[in-house]
Amino acid sequence: MKKTEIKNRKILLSHGSGGIAMSSLIKELMLDKFDNPILRLLTDSAVLKSTGEKNLCFTTDSYVVNPLFFPGGDIGTLAVNGTVNDLSVMGAKPLYISCSFILEEGLDWEILDKITTSMAKAARSARVQIVTGDTKVVEKGSADKAFINTSGVGILQKGLTLSKKKIKPGDKIIINGEIGSHGLAVMSKRENFKTNIKSDCAPLWELIESMLIVGGIKFMRDPTRGGVATVLCEIAEISGFGIKIDERKLPIHENVYSFSEILGLDPLYVANEGKVIAVTNKDKAAFILSKMKKHALGKEASIIGEITKENKGKVVLETIVGGERIVDRLVGDQLPRIC
Amino acid sequence: MKKTEIKNRKILLSHGSGGIAMSSLIKELMLDKFDNPILRLLTDSAVLKSTGEKNLCFTTDSYVVNPLFFPGGDIGTLAVNGTVNDLSVMGAKPLYISCSFILEEGLDWEILDKITTSMAKAARSARVQIVTGDTKVVEKGSADKAFINTSGVGILQKGLTLSKKKIKPGDKIIINGEIGSHGLAVMSKRENFKTNIKSDCAPLWELIESMLIVGGIKFMRDPTRGGVATVLCEIAEISGFGIKIDERKLPIHENVYSFSEILGLDPLYVANEGKVIAVTNKDKAAFILSKMKKHALGKEASIIGEITKENKGKVVLETIVGGERIVDRLVGDQLPRIC
Repeated sequence: MKKTEIKNRKILLSHGSGGIAMSSLIKELMLDKFDNPILRLLTDSAVLKSTGEKNLCFTTDSYVVNPLFFPGGDIGTLAVNGTVNDLSVMGAKPLYISCSFILEEGLDWEILDKITTSMAKAARSARVQIVTGDTKVVEKGSADKAFINTSGVGILQKGLTLSKKKIKPGDKIIINGEIGSHGLAVMSKRENFKTNIKSDCAPLWELIESMLIVGGIKFMRDPTRGGVATVLCEIAEISGFGIKIDERKLPIHENVYSFSEILGLDPLYVANEGKVIAVTNKDKAAFILSKMKKHALGKEASIIGEITKENKGKVVLETIVGGERIVDRLVGDQLPRIC
Repeated sequence: MKKTEIKNRKILLSHGSGGIAMSSLIKELMLDKFDNPILRLLTDSAVLKSTGEKNLCFTTDSYVVNPLFFPGGDIGTLAVNGTVNDLSVMGAKPLYISCSFILEEGLDWEILDKITTSMAKAARSARVQIVTGDTKVVEKGSADKAFINTSGVGILQKGLTLSKKKIKPGDKIIINGEIGSHGLAVMSKRENFKTNIKSDCAPLWELIESMLIVGGIKFMRDPTRGGVATVLCEIAEISGFGIKIDERKLPIHENVYSFSEILGLDPLYVANEGKVIAVTNKDKAAFILSKMKKHALGKEASIIGEITKENKGKVVLETIVGGERIVDRLVGDQLPRIC
């Protein structure tokens, strides 16, 4: 990137959105400089090659959610499950988590106590160990209460190779349940709205492991920042094919619909924290779906669409009323600090 | 910990200092809850056991240094070298680094561009790959410009087992060079003092690898937050023996002495970012020292003291004038946001 293009540009909230602005920031300021074949794949976790352990996965995420506590979870639950899920959607069994705190001077010990209690509980339930950590404190006003980074190490399931290259027209697209609840739960708490929406924050490995046993899964991703729309757009882009989604098959709860409408949001772009989108072999889709429905986190699983030869690189939504609309990548930031 | 003791307590800057307050915070709010045998060792990196790769090391650190740029480095250099060194002092060859940014809305792209350029350069020079990352943006005023977390994965050298349990009276304590420059370089920039002190920020693996070849190294740690004094106190505590340090052997540059005096600081407690303290077999110490002196980062290496039967759990400094004083653990925080 030419220096003239960098000059006078500022970091905006949208650069953390998971959308177009973030992609461009990463491409322009990081990818070329850090260049290596592992990073360039831009997968949820990096598959490490020369550790002697060929199937090791490694991932990182920082959590800045505001408020720290929200219906269905808190920053601690999120920090453990988020990283567990980034490993899981790569087909890697999560094993070890690191945790690094940046705390604001003056934070109540009681708050940190609640957060670490949540992390411990989430780690036990996801069957991972928190094995290493770090604590930094900055002056009052230099951070907003608490930020947490977790990184994770997992083991790729034997013989498993998920890859965008395997995606072909006719493949089915499955999601494990209702969408939009995490983002709206955080928003409702932040804005002091009364709703009964709870975050879907949950560890996905057990569900995903049961899906992988069936076979036929080609690619997975978790629709967090930027929501389902962003993941679908990414899949269309990296596979080089089109995607057709049937709006009637999208599991969206009534309260999510109505609260989204009030806020002027589209649930397709709202963050989820316990959802996986899988691209599967056409012939295995029904069996995978039946497996998913047996798991607590897959009861509302649904085949929401398929990969198409047409509309290459685009996501087309067949609306409930029978029309069609293009689902674009997120421009700007719908909901800052949602994770 | 009883709930009554947590109530009304606040996070202080000293909880991020590397000293007593930080230890107590970690013990009281994290260790018991996250309990597992790997974490409980509280080593610079975690040695992972059940990944199929028995000698894998994993570490994490968040960097909040203020200012972002200082003589001899910046937050980017620091974030790469700090994590590289946490692996290195465990005897693990650093291989892979993750990098996660928390950016303040409004930050100049030019600043981030400089930081990522530094990270790329530092990664190349430490021969590690940045393989996975994350970017979050928070509203203006919710963070101070930029925080970076790096986590790292490395491979323990074959047949190497460094352990506090191997430490015995008579063992020598070696450091690879002058102390105190990192902390003072950051302070001088922050407070706008004119000095010629530069941070010692550097990747230690190459030096450490050359030391390990000799054999006889029992334990290593890098004296970052809390400085040399804190590491020595930790070694005395975990080994159960005493430590005697000869002040005349401590490599401290004249400008560090005088600037510390102006600031009312003790260089023994000031952070370093390119230093390793090694406890070695008495008979191998001279050979290890000669190896270190051949490396650019070990030219001023010095045997600064030894493990003693006397003064169990304590560090005793023999002063230049012939007296003795106890080196205590850091209480409070000398220099916040130094790394």
